[in-house]
Amino acid sequence: MADKSPLAPEKFPDLPAIDGVRLAAGACGIRYKGRTDLLLVEMAPETTAAGVFTKSKTASAPVDWCRKALKGGQAQALVVNSGNANAFTGKAGDGSVERTVAAAADVIACRPSKVFVASTGVIGEMLPDEKLTEALPKLKDALDGKSWATAAEAIMTTDTFPKAATRTVDIDGTKVTINGIAKGSGMIAPDMATMLAFVFTDAAIPAPVLQDMLNTGADKSFNSITVDSDTSTSDTLMLFATGAAGNDMFASADAPALDEFRDQLDDLLIDLAQQVVRDGEGASKFISVTVSGAENNMAAKRIALSIANSPLVKTAIAGEDANWGRIVMAVGKAGEKADRDKLSITIGGHLIAEDGLARNDYDEAPVAEHMKGQEIDILADVGIADGRATVWTCDLTHGYITINADYRS
Amino acid sequence: MADKSPLAPEKFPDLPAIDGVRLAAGACGIRYKGRTDLLLVEMAPETTAAGVFTKSKTASAPVDWCRKALKGGQAQALVVNSGNANAFTGKAGDGSVERTVAAAADVIACRPSKVFVASTGVIGEMLPDEKLTEALPKLKDALDGKSWATAAEAIMTTDTFPKAATRTVDIDGTKVTINGIAKGSGMIAPDMATMLAFVFTDAAIPAPVLQDMLNTGADKSFNSITVDSDTSTSDTLMLFATGAAGNDMFASADAPALDEFRDQLDDLLIDLAQQVVRDGEGASKFISVTVSGAENNMAAKRIALSIANSPLVKTAIAGEDANWGRIVMAVGKAGEKADRDKLSITIGGHLIAEDGLARNDYDEAPVAEHMKGQEIDILADVGIADGRATVWTCDLTHGYITINADYRS
Repeated sequence: MADKSPLAPEKFPDLPAIDGVRLAAGACGIRYKGRTDLLLVEMAPETTAAGVFTKSKTASAPVDWCRKALKGGQAQALVVNSGNANAFTGKAGDGSVERTVAAAADVIACRPSKVFVASTGVIGEMLPDEKLTEALPKLKDALDGKSWATAAEAIMTTDTFPKAATRTVDIDGTKVTINGIAKGSGMIAPDMATMLAFVFTDAAIPAPVLQDMLNTGADKSFNSITVDSDTSTSDTLMLFATGAAGNDMFASADAPALDEFRDQLDDLLIDLAQQVVRDGEGASKFISVTVSGAENNMAAKRIALSIANSPLVKTAIAGEDANWGRIVMAVGKAGEKADRDKLSITIGGHLIAEDGLARNDYDEAPVAEHMKGQEIDILADVGIADGRATVWTCDLTHGYITINADYRS
Repeated sequence: MADKSPLAPEKFPDLPAIDGVRLAAGACGIRYKGRTDLLLVEMAPETTAAGVFTKSKTASAPVDWCRKALKGGQAQALVVNSGNANAFTGKAGDGSVERTVAAAADVIACRPSKVFVASTGVIGEMLPDEKLTEALPKLKDALDGKSWATAAEAIMTTDTFPKAATRTVDIDGTKVTINGIAKGSGMIAPDMATMLAFVFTDAAIPAPVLQDMLNTGADKSFNSITVDSDTSTSDTLMLFATGAAGNDMFASADAPALDEFRDQLDDLLIDLAQQVVRDGEGASKFISVTVSGAENNMAAKRIALSIANSPLVKTAIAGEDANWGRIVMAVGKAGEKADRDKLSITIGGHLIAEDGLARNDYDEAPVAEHMKGQEIDILADVGIADGRATVWTCDLTHGYITINADYRS
């Protein structure tokens, strides 16, 4: 395994137990001997579910299954393996999913449509599902409410640190908790990347409301990050609500009583998404790109992603070079309206170009200092209207090439 | 300057003189002392012109000028400088263009609307146009019909070799010649890159016909290459026809007498475009990506570009790894229709996956041998209909990072 990313959080957060959620992780030998690679989560029978999945046209068999199962809006089990993505495995891949689901339904004693599965790792090799199904009964015996750290580790592939976040929220006088775990470091791009994230809460929330909140939250978080513009066949973000907290149910995501929950959910999703970027393959700098003055928020996001995905911008930042000319180039190639003669660029809070021109009195010293840091802030105003968006990415370094030029071998 | 690309052609081609075209190049000290950085081309008064330019929304001042001047359809002078792109220079940049055009019109004795200009190099710094205008009279005295090699060198920036191509063609019994020069190595992507290309012929062809042929040819060549998916503010492809060969004029690009001219023009444009890819920053392998079985040709091209732009595919090839899983990923992220269970992947002529599955009898040895070579061929059939397209790119190596992490400093 590669060295821990220099951008990793200082420590793994303390995740409290969540009423109605029990977890167990183990090593079933799918790809690496002795490495934790299988996660089983059991949820209370009344748990509701929501999901957001990859937009890839070659989505994996597990993603296909989850989309179908989600129509029921209920969940009781989640099975996640790392080491093999069960993607590009044809009809045989669907068979692996069916056998895994059947075994989990049997172990947890629930309907198959309440079992969700996710796989991450190598594409195009058959998933040895018998290793999963054999391991499930043992994991069932090991279920507890505390194993968040081992759960986060079990779903890692090229990640250099496990990712998790927690928030507590008040819903109309009832205290509820939200815990989330995630994995991902390469092939990260909007919609969505070899990215898996699972979020659990003891709040009582109907499935359609949960789905509404997850859609909005995903746009602000996992669909606002990019490492290398590549999109995986397996991206999965799921949100499960056990209802054990016993709060009142609300029929709409816009209910004022859910305001705080929604805010904290968004915040947790952004936290997890940023951790994924902080583990970007070869990353040495965490980059926030904000675009303002765009035709609308969607246009702002497209321009921001154009900047964040530009290899020339990302290599300049790796070289600690405040090369705003490349930022201008990336604004231009986004295809969205921008006024060349009103464009302004701010780096690290220092306005370095305005009205389409470098400032005469621009002092390079504080900007050069900012570029040496680990957290880089770019703001581009394109001078059209009020559209605004922020996305996050990392720089493009020799480390990325080294990791990806010999990942498989 | 970096070492010459390992993918460079063995030698610079012999370009014959073209009746009605005279060239001169010199060093006017825009950025580097003693380096040839200015090109002047004089063309016969009856020369027709066509152009294709960057789609960037922050196009440079010279591109703005050329678009306007091209409405006249006639050309008599071309001025190209390297070292400074005159992009993101606001109204002052327009002033630099106007002064350069006026000086060239004066020197060549033609209307300003028959003068075309192009600039390439650093973005966001004022073009010292007095250096150009002072040098033009001297260049005028040095004009000759032979200086193609120095012309190709004068327009280089990070290029490691000058790029040119020539073809001879028969139009209804009259022999005509086509010569082209090009530059570009980074920021290369469809529509179109820091890419300049100028093509000259002695054929007599009306401007609208010339424009038709150039549009078609650009789609098959410069808009089918990508190095790093970045698009420049300055991309310019122009085609000039002096008419000195005295062939009959045809009012449509579809005239059968122009068939051979069209074919050879396309061939020359593809030759130049491939030379740009062969000089891709850090390139160690030249990659041809063909997609077949797509919904239509446009869908095929989008999928092919998705593969050619994928950092994960490009790093795998740099690592000589036939990682077809990443090709599948890139097919999926293109957003075009693909049948996961009919997908087939062929590398170096060896079918390695079909019907959405790796072949059981797939022999890795000849594929591994192919991956060690300098010319990599990828074919993906997506199993929907008959759409087909080919694009060209290079691999993504440590060299790219090294070049771009400290280009400006």
